[in-house]
Amino acid sequence: MIDYQEELELYLEQIREMTQNKQYAQLRELFLPMEPADIALLLEEAGEEAISLLYRLLPKELAAEVFVELESDSQEKLINGFSNSELKEVLDELYLDDAAGIVEEMPASVVIRILDRATPEMRKSLNEILQYPEDSAGSIMNMEFLSLKKDMTVADAFKRIRRIGGEMETINILYVTDPTRHLLGVLSVRDLLLADEEDLIEDIMDTNLVWAKTVDDKEEVAQALSKYDFLAMPIVDKEDRLVGIVTVDDAMDVIEEATTEDFEKMAAMLPSDKPYLRTRAFDTWKARIPWLMILMLSATFTGMILSHYENALAACLVLNAYIPMLSGTGGNSGTQASVAVIRALSLDEVDFSDVLRVLWKELRVGLLCGVCLAGANFLKMMLVDRMLLGNSEVTIPVCLVVCLTVLLVVVLAKAIGCSLPLLAEKIGLDPAVMASPFISTLVDATSLLIYFQFASMLLGI
Amino acid sequence: MIDYQEELELYLEQIREMTQNKQYAQLRELFLPMEPADIALLLEEAGEEAISLLYRLLPKELAAEVFVELESDSQEKLINGFSNSELKEVLDELYLDDAAGIVEEMPASVVIRILDRATPEMRKSLNEILQYPEDSAGSIMNMEFLSLKKDMTVADAFKRIRRIGGEMETINILYVTDPTRHLLGVLSVRDLLLADEEDLIEDIMDTNLVWAKTVDDKEEVAQALSKYDFLAMPIVDKEDRLVGIVTVDDAMDVIEEATTEDFEKMAAMLPSDKPYLRTRAFDTWKARIPWLMILMLSATFTGMILSHYENALAACLVLNAYIPMLSGTGGNSGTQASVAVIRALSLDEVDFSDVLRVLWKELRVGLLCGVCLAGANFLKMMLVDRMLLGNSEVTIPVCLVVCLTVLLVVVLAKAIGCSLPLLAEKIGLDPAVMASPFISTLVDATSLLIYFQFASMLLGI
Repeated sequence: MIDYQEELELYLEQIREMTQNKQYAQLRELFLPMEPADIALLLEEAGEEAISLLYRLLPKELAAEVFVELESDSQEKLINGFSNSELKEVLDELYLDDAAGIVEEMPASVVIRILDRATPEMRKSLNEILQYPEDSAGSIMNMEFLSLKKDMTVADAFKRIRRIGGEMETINILYVTDPTRHLLGVLSVRDLLLADEEDLIEDIMDTNLVWAKTVDDKEEVAQALSKYDFLAMPIVDKEDRLVGIVTVDDAMDVIEEATTEDFEKMAAMLPSDKPYLRTRAFDTWKARIPWLMILMLSATFTGMILSHYENALAACLVLNAYIPMLSGTGGNSGTQASVAVIRALSLDEVDFSDVLRVLWKELRVGLLCGVCLAGANFLKMMLVDRMLLGNSEVTIPVCLVVCLTVLLVVVLAKAIGCSLPLLAEKIGLDPAVMASPFISTLVDATSLLIYFQFASMLLGI
Repeated sequence: MIDYQEELELYLEQIREMTQNKQYAQLRELFLPMEPADIALLLEEAGEEAISLLYRLLPKELAAEVFVELESDSQEKLINGFSNSELKEVLDELYLDDAAGIVEEMPASVVIRILDRATPEMRKSLNEILQYPEDSAGSIMNMEFLSLKKDMTVADAFKRIRRIGGEMETINILYVTDPTRHLLGVLSVRDLLLADEEDLIEDIMDTNLVWAKTVDDKEEVAQALSKYDFLAMPIVDKEDRLVGIVTVDDAMDVIEEATTEDFEKMAAMLPSDKPYLRTRAFDTWKARIPWLMILMLSATFTGMILSHYENALAACLVLNAYIPMLSGTGGNSGTQASVAVIRALSLDEVDFSDVLRVLWKELRVGLLCGVCLAGANFLKMMLVDRMLLGNSEVTIPVCLVVCLTVLLVVVLAKAIGCSLPLLAEKIGLDPAVMASPFISTLVDATSLLIYFQFASMLLGI
């Protein structure tokens, strides 16, 4: 494990020095014992000019593994510098799902060059994978997997593994199919090792099958793989034929990417596909400005409500001082509920059909929170604002207006916060977009209306 | 894959009916082909009374696998109903890391009973695991792994796998140790299968090793495992002896749990360890009220600033209508920056040493966003508020006050938002706690001060 900052700097220093002194043999020796992911990190950090030089020092197989781990802009730069035979060499070493992942990120000119250099089989498979929708299991599956026939013996299976297992991404899980490629069973290489040489595959395979379809959402497939503790999920096409597998390492990447997107959406940003520091300021701006603009303009309504009650406020200006607290408390209460529900949705713990259970829960939580917050606020207003700070405008009716508003706003915010994401899911929108900023804006406006309603009832303004 | 709501309801209906009619053989048949995770879900949903009846229908090995997947309160309930021999049966089937995970969640009385029934070796190992800090790799590792000696032949290794491989959680990755249990190399079962029977292990093992320590943070170990696409991470003790492995399925659970905690902390909630709908309203309240209370009381400062400028506001009440927009825009801008940095921190993409790069990036993004937002706001105020709505109080100086404040607040919010999480990480606090609600409160107060400063400068109030 390269401990991120400390060792990284040391290695980078070494690499810079060796590159300057043209100590290429030593550089190669330095990289050889490292993990591909770490080498990729170092290449990225070493800078644009060094990357293609350093990359060419790596032995062929390692080079391909490192290539997969690079960011797509570095991959593009490398490919543009490759001779045709270099490109072919890399492609030959890549697993199909990795190759497909790379091709998806490249501009058309590069894609054409890649398809041109790929073997006919790879080209055919790449074309197939590229036809699946971007978020589907088909788009991330690997079409190279090891399948067995049910009438093979264990010894036959071992022979098959020895013959073609070297080219597969994984042989830990083996799939048994019939002549029409329908999935019959699954077994692990351990099952094979613990069985007798003469045992038939059909006698030792597990026929309790779980699979996903090529068109299934890749995030759901990844979550299912995690839930079942699988090393790979078999993927079938529309005719239920086994066409590929999604392996656990790819599932982890899918989950990580989806989680990052959720975080971004919840914080009112458009999802980005590059690491934070590698995104240019301009791209970050593009991802952030749309929601900022929308939310700023929608805050106009809140402003209009305030303008509308300008005279009421002028008559009792003390009310104004509690508006930030009310809008903050409402926003935070709503955010808590919405984030809890959004997370539960993405972990498949709740569903729109649970909406009543969720609402009932949030109403009780909201009531508990509201009563506590209103109580604390009452004490604070009477003891601190009135007695300690001597603000004689803080009368008991004013206190009541503020505290009743707190109570009602908290309950309402919880109800809005928990139901909007469920509603969004139901109508096919992304629940994460319904998170805090959106709900805060909605709750802001609502809480002001409630506030002035109570004020006009209790203070007669 | 049980498609969450639709099939679940169907199965539950069937289970209820069969239970009522005492069709136990059919119930057993229903469960047998299912995945343990799905059976656990159905048992949980079937209700408190049914669970122990249904559980006892499962064959021994499947029962243990289902047991691991249950929520800890159901596990506790089942254990309390177990006879001593039933408890022993379950324990015998469990992998050590699962047993340790269960024991950690149980009250003392149950723990004593479990330790009492465990085999002496399991008791010893459980005691060892339980001594590791809760968040350490040691606390989630499995001490049962398959190790080989370097002078074994491939044939010897297969013999060893056939003899003891059945009891191991995984045999896909094998570790080569010296007599003092120091890690020498690693190989996959595929390497064994593709090698000759007479090859020596030391000739085919991979000596480029990556490992973690028992005291390392479990989340970091899980992230490393994901980064390197490993199926298991070897764990060494203080003396660098191999003592266990963390497998990919456990790493996925760790990441999922840590992500949920991050979401909760960012939304100002204390982390909970149960799924959303299974947490009682009272427990949810306990997790949410502390931050709501703190944030409500800290909004007092914002209120005090407003009170302080009460006279200035009374002189130019139109300013009041733009406060929600200012605080919202500031809060959202800060949240975007903080969430982006918090996520980058947890993916190990940035570090405190990057603080200047991060600040430089956010300042540029802030400036871009600020200029756009201020510009849009100027247009909106002049065209909508002044011309369309005919509010003659919206003069050009007022516009300038609002727009300059927007610009400055956005830049400041970005700077605060990105640096607070980095600072928190540096001084050993949790960066996720520095997220939106905290930053919004801080930005709220700051933006008001800036607003009134500009107002007094440009409007002379």
